[in-house]
Amino acid sequence: MASTNKDVQYLEEVSHLLDRAKELQDSASSFLSKMKHEEQSILQRVSALQSDLKKLQACVASASASETLDKREAEKLEEELSRAKCMIADGDVSSLLPSKSNGKFLRMFLGPISVRATRKDVQLKVKEEYNNYRDRTAVMFLLFPFALLILRYAIWKGCFPAWAVQLYQAWLLFLYTSLALRENILRINGSDIRPWWIYHHYCAMMMALVSLTWEIKGQPDCYQKQRGIELFLTWAMMQGVAMLLQNRYQRQRLYTRIALGKANRMDVVWGETASVEGQLWLLYPVLFILQGFEAYIGILLLMTAVTSSVSEWQVVVCGGLLVIMASGNFANTVQTLSAKLRF
Amino acid sequence: MASTNKDVQYLEEVSHLLDRAKELQDSASSFLSKMKHEEQSILQRVSALQSDLKKLQACVASASASETLDKREAEKLEEELSRAKCMIADGDVSSLLPSKSNGKFLRMFLGPISVRATRKDVQLKVKEEYNNYRDRTAVMFLLFPFALLILRYAIWKGCFPAWAVQLYQAWLLFLYTSLALRENILRINGSDIRPWWIYHHYCAMMMALVSLTWEIKGQPDCYQKQRGIELFLTWAMMQGVAMLLQNRYQRQRLYTRIALGKANRMDVVWGETASVEGQLWLLYPVLFILQGFEAYIGILLLMTAVTSSVSEWQVVVCGGLLVIMASGNFANTVQTLSAKLRF
Ligand SMILES: CC(C)(COP(=O)(O)OP(=O)(O)OC[C@H]1O[C@@H](n2cnc3c(N)ncnc32)[C@H](O)[C@@H]1OP(=O)(O)O)[C@@H](O)C(=O)NCCC(=O)NCCS
Ligand SMILES: CC(C)(COP(=O)(O)OP(=O)(O)OC[C@H]1O[C@@H](n2cnc3c(N)ncnc32)[C@H](O)[C@@H]1OP(=O)(O)O)[C@@H](O)C(=O)NCCC(=O)NCCS
Repeated sequence: MASTNKDVQYLEEVSHLLDRAKELQDSASSFLSKMKHEEQSILQRVSALQSDLKKLQACVASASASETLDKREAEKLEEELSRAKCMIADGDVSSLLPSKSNGKFLRMFLGPISVRATRKDVQLKVKEEYNNYRDRTAVMFLLFPFALLILRYAIWKGCFPAWAVQLYQAWLLFLYTSLALRENILRINGSDIRPWWIYHHYCAMMMALVSLTWEIKGQPDCYQKQRGIELFLTWAMMQGVAMLLQNRYQRQRLYTRIALGKANRMDVVWGETASVEGQLWLLYPVLFILQGFEAYIGILLLMTAVTSSVSEWQVVVCGGLLVIMASGNFANTVQTLSAKLRF
Repeated sequence: MASTNKDVQYLEEVSHLLDRAKELQDSASSFLSKMKHEEQSILQRVSALQSDLKKLQACVASASASETLDKREAEKLEEELSRAKCMIADGDVSSLLPSKSNGKFLRMFLGPISVRATRKDVQLKVKEEYNNYRDRTAVMFLLFPFALLILRYAIWKGCFPAWAVQLYQAWLLFLYTSLALRENILRINGSDIRPWWIYHHYCAMMMALVSLTWEIKGQPDCYQKQRGIELFLTWAMMQGVAMLLQNRYQRQRLYTRIALGKANRMDVVWGETASVEGQLWLLYPVLFILQGFEAYIGILLLMTAVTSSVSEWQVVVCGGLLVIMASGNFANTVQTLSAKLRF
């Protein structure tokens, strides 16, 4: 059968479209390879600059030490050099630099996939979303234990049912896992978060996991047996309040950072602390009280384990973890505070 | 004090270095903006092509229906058009297309960060790493329950201690969470994995979580009380064997896909199944037996809940989940099989 006119027309259109698809495919390939090439050449320039910078820094330092260079002059030069360093570390160049590799925790959960956002605005959005997440969480942190404590007398006749407490503990496990993952991601994206705050969430994950296996005893005499749970819930509510305060403060810091725009890291440290100093006077005392209470509950649990005859291993582990977390939190809060006071 | 020669020399070197840093910064900025611009223009061409393609497909279909176009001719044209479609969906163009947004599960754990690898070779590496991870896991899947079953008589005098079983359950919880996260990431990176295999891991996560809260009773008479655990461990070992078989088969599939290189998706379906057909004859029966056993344990648990007087809610939930997983696995395995037989 001979082809009709219609057939020929379609055939032409289709083959034209296939040509266009091929062309497009070629443009995409050549674009990607060109991009890779240019990126490579910029990276080479960066590493050359970085090594020159290091050499010059060493020269200036040694010249200043051997007094062949005026001290004041040397300081000015060093400042200029660190400005150059910041330009590379914070500007558009930084988004081309190879990212830190995923830490052990991220590799364990996600494998080797890259979680870095190259664009600065995306990075800031991720940070903002993290802050929002913490805000929503803080509210839950207040309401969940509050509801449990209320319902105990309103409905449950003075005794927590095991499932309700376990639901709460499962939620905590999910929450801490998610926070630990998100904070690791923020680190890859250039956040200066102290490693401890992430380790702290690993400890909290462990504790939630262990407390899930903890048998919750009911009637009779449950008031005595559930004293630990009550203390823990009270502390959790206090932590909710602290989280809300901390979030408000850290959100404001982020806004200052965004407002300062392309300013480099050093400028930011100057600018941002000034705008939120007032809040810090409220935040720090609350944090210290909370950390004290955390340690208190931990020690109480450890003492129970020592004095009571049939002690479960979960009591010891949770008590130990609480004490470790409280001391770590305290040490790191003090260190942050003293770093801030130095400015 | 006048500047010495040395001072002037350093000053010049430092200011030269700062200039270089600024230049670099500018090149990086202009590179990034140029890149974004070119990407945009390619994306515009893609969407124009896609809409023309859709129109042409509709024309051909209606012409073929109204018989103004020869049926055989129309089929050939349709094939050409789907080749053009694959070229866009699989080639370098695809790595420029905006990625699927993170599903609910990924958003819950990671937030809105993008987990897409743009380069094809990186995507394949992620897939390969996932396969390796599953291999390592499958070995653990065999050894962990095996060790528990052996140690029960060798050391524990016929009774599982609670902590050992709970350690195993905690490991399962971590494992399933990690698999679910990784599979969601693979989906974003273009894998055709059926949604069910991911839901299946959500169910498994739920089950591990619930079984963590399940009180494990010891002496006296623990053989009777721990019958459920024993069955579960036996099943877990069988699953280890199935996973090893499945992995071997899927790794070979991936190698075929890599070897076929830039071939499009349709070619791959042709090529890959042929090379592994032999393994399928072993794999499918094993899978069906396993699914039957899974359903059997589920029903056993549900029956325990009905017949025994004091039943814990965990028994009902775990039994139900096992039955759901078994039926879902069965349905999806059958669907995959029938899709393969159609070729
Ligand atoms: C002490 C504290 C207020 C200091 O906050 P800060 O002024 O933001 O501290 P830094 O200047 O060192 O912050 C550096 C980075 O770490 C982040 N960061 C600091 N503490 C953090 C925390 N606890 N969790 C997550 N991120 C934190 C900051 O957001 C900042 O990120 P960025 O580089 O992306 O902008 C804060 O660390 C805090 O509230 N910690 C919690 C203390 C605690 O004990 N909580 C539990 C109570 S028991
Ligand atoms: C049935 C089975 C062998 C088919 O495998 P297959 O031939 O690779 O299936 P498909 O062709 O549909 O695969 C499409 C994609 O999904 C992936 N995939 C299929 N089943 C998967 C599973 N169970 N887990 C993870 N990924 C899976 C494949 O790797 C492939 O990925 P790609 O697009 O990135 O290459 C496989 O699904 C399987 O073993 N399922 C497990 C069955 C089970 O019941 N397990 C538990 C026992 S109780």
